Amino acid sequence: ADELWTRRWGSVPAMAAITSVMRAHQILLSRVDAVVRPFGLTFARYEALVLLTFSRKGELSLSKIGERLMVHPTSVTNTIVRLEGAGLVSRRPNPLDGRGVLAAITERGRAVVEEATRALMAMDFGLEGYDEKQCEQVFELLRPLRVAAGDFTPPAE
Amino acid sequence: ADELWTRRWGSVPAMAAITSVMRAHQILLSRVDAVVRPFGLTFARYEALVLLTFSRKGELSLSKIGERLMVHPTSVTNTIVRLEGAGLVSRRPNPLDGRGVLAAITERGRAVVEEATRALMAMDFGLEGYDEKQCEQVFELLRPLRVAAGDFTPPAE
Repeated sequence: ADELWTRRWGSVPAMAAITSVMRAHQILLSRVDAVVRPFGLTFARYEALVLLTFSRKGELSLSKIGERLMVHPTSVTNTIVRLEGAGLVSRRPNPLDGRGVLAAITERGRAVVEEATRALMAMDFGLEGYDEKQCEQVFELLRPLRVAAGDFTPPAE
Repeated sequence: ADELWTRRWGSVPAMAAITSVMRAHQILLSRVDAVVRPFGLTFARYEALVLLTFSRKGELSLSKIGERLMVHPTSVTNTIVRLEGAGLVSRRPNPLDGRGVLAAITERGRAVVEEATRALMAMDFGLEGYDEKQCEQVFELLRPLRVAAGDFTPPAE
């Protein structure tokens, strides 16, 4: 298709680059999803658990989780409901926000994060073919895009 | 979070790289989705239309579309149903496959692909901050991952 594209619209390096990013995402996501599946997780749910592990009290509001992971509120709710169903988080109303909900990681959740992280590290998060330097190049090359999107600005508390 | 991650599990360049790919995907997808939205498209539907444009007869089976775009049959069906609803493709039973369906791009579909492509090229597919060389670096750096996943093997006809 790349070849047909070039014949039709000329060489468009940006098109080749975006296709690469989208396919890399698809390939990596399917690899890491497969590795966390035995833990009853998807990679998205794993990321939410890691975020809770990193919070001071092991507890965050759903709105904060959505903000940090930059995902839609509906997706956060779905993720947390699934994690609660698996006994990895518990939910309670936010005493500081009448309509808000807090999610806390459970002991079982903490244990699962550790195990899943070990499994993911063992397969280099799907990047087995890449050495340390190449991984850093991926990070550096995509960094300006993320900076422009506000990724490295600490969220307002 | 990157900092907390490092404190907890040590420096894991693969984790930083996969996070970069996932965020880059999220950022670019939201940019290109916004640009094709006025045409009644999502980027996924745009990709399906482009594929049909490139086919000899402007018509492909849904299974072939799924194979080429490497997406799940359910997603292909959903994409094609939406495109048909917008008058951009038409569907008919595949005479060569009793349970199969063929999707053909309509004249209106061809016109929309042209307009949407112009709009996407005008914003460099969300990569405005990247020059030609950087776009090529993104492609080259992610190429081994895609090669390993079979991306550049021509699909069997």
